[in-house]
Amino acid sequence: MVRRPLREIASAANPLLKVFRRALADGTTREGWLAVEGPFALEEALAASATRRAVAVQSVLVSQRAAERFHVLLDRLPRDTEVAVIADSLFARVAHTQNPQGIAALIEIEKPDLGHFLRRPSVLLLVACGVQDPGNLGTMMRSALAFGASALITTKETVSPFNPKCMRASAGSAFHLPTLAGIEPAGLFKQLKAAGIVTVATDRNSPRSLADADLKGSRALLVGREGSGLREEIIARADLRLSIPIRAGMDSVNAATAASIFLYEAARQRGFAQFSN
Amino acid sequence: MVRRPLREIASAANPLLKVFRRALADGTTREGWLAVEGPFALEEALAASATRRAVAVQSVLVSQRAAERFHVLLDRLPRDTEVAVIADSLFARVAHTQNPQGIAALIEIEKPDLGHFLRRPSVLLLVACGVQDPGNLGTMMRSALAFGASALITTKETVSPFNPKCMRASAGSAFHLPTLAGIEPAGLFKQLKAAGIVTVATDRNSPRSLADADLKGSRALLVGREGSGLREEIIARADLRLSIPIRAGMDSVNAATAASIFLYEAARQRGFAQFSN
Repeated sequence: MVRRPLREIASAANPLLKVFRRALADGTTREGWLAVEGPFALEEALAASATRRAVAVQSVLVSQRAAERFHVLLDRLPRDTEVAVIADSLFARVAHTQNPQGIAALIEIEKPDLGHFLRRPSVLLLVACGVQDPGNLGTMMRSALAFGASALITTKETVSPFNPKCMRASAGSAFHLPTLAGIEPAGLFKQLKAAGIVTVATDRNSPRSLADADLKGSRALLVGREGSGLREEIIARADLRLSIPIRAGMDSVNAATAASIFLYEAARQRGFAQFSN
Repeated sequence: MVRRPLREIASAANPLLKVFRRALADGTTREGWLAVEGPFALEEALAASATRRAVAVQSVLVSQRAAERFHVLLDRLPRDTEVAVIADSLFARVAHTQNPQGIAALIEIEKPDLGHFLRRPSVLLLVACGVQDPGNLGTMMRSALAFGASALITTKETVSPFNPKCMRASAGSAFHLPTLAGIEPAGLFKQLKAAGIVTVATDRNSPRSLADADLKGSRALLVGREGSGLREEIIARADLRLSIPIRAGMDSVNAATAASIFLYEAARQRGFAQFSN
């Protein structure tokens, strides 16, 4: 097999190492590229780049030992991906994880165009308004992709969908699900209304069950913060307020579970048909 | 208000402190009582003891500062609960959490009688076979209680439902949901069969959707390990093999999410009616 020629970096002062070190600590570079560690994340990004033009693996940093171990993965990288090899000891100083696996990458994901999704028939959107736990948001992203949602939108008060813990909990879905982060709710409501998309608030205090509502048309599912749920003013602006019926005396189920059940119920009503981006 | 008289312990060598220290590290005492820290867990155990005879708060250990702060909670304890007060500095040495809140308790939960549940009409049981992550198992317990399951059964290869992380993720449900831990699958299958309970394997490779199956009668939902799912021999022994339909190309949703969706679907088919223990 022909091995890809690799660029070697010997100096700890090399600018690329500085870019990686800072990006791996922050989750993104200054231009907004995602910084990820480990072969699994790179595999997922690579798989996503094959089907989504918006995803591109820009740079890969690999330790000498990992370059041997992961050479099959490295050989699969596109020609225009920058690949740099460094000493194992140097990688440990760049990595952010406790047990670095010797491979890290910078992934560019183009910001999706919201208008594109708003024009689709029977579109399903997930809107996270205040979710705080990255594990919960990642689990929601995995379910959103699984149940045919076209995109995730997060408001400013929500944890970053590009948080490394969120990326891990998404099990790769973060690279596949078009995501718009840090959106202002007021403007979003106007755009959704203008596009004829019905906004559905998950509201545990509503007497109306999600199973009795019509989730088949164009719908934006709004999910709130762990514990307190959606803010009152968001619930008040939504077209529908729906709850998941649960045993009397219980307050709620887990936030990611609740969002996933809404997504499942929408997919069930749609006959599990809308499974394309 | 009349304050409850509290027993003070001054010596670090006191046997009760040793019992608490060991139990808080292990999760349970030698006789199997649960050891919990923090006012939330004690509140939940107390609430459960009011409705479930099987739950009893046996001993409470509290620091001097916490005895002031949580005196309303302490006053609500039953008369026969042993309550001991120790110096704040001593509590820090007994506690297992990083930021102890000065209150810990030993909770006795009687082992439920499986036969009792097997005799019920249209019973819904959750059987965890190999779940490894305590956060996932706790989330499943919360959903099981929410969607009307009568009990949780775990097999030997499953993480302990009394693991502190599991208890936290259950958000108090661990005290309310009757739980039988460490059961041998072969014997369980025989008992379920003899009782006429249909065993339902969650099997992502099955072409049959949970939404097309009848989950209304007596059902035991079998859920497997994260990543690999149920073992083949368990799937083979089950009466039904059902999957959650998801987008092509995706492998699965989160394990706790999948279990919760099965429980939701069962509750939906039952008209959300079976919401009593």
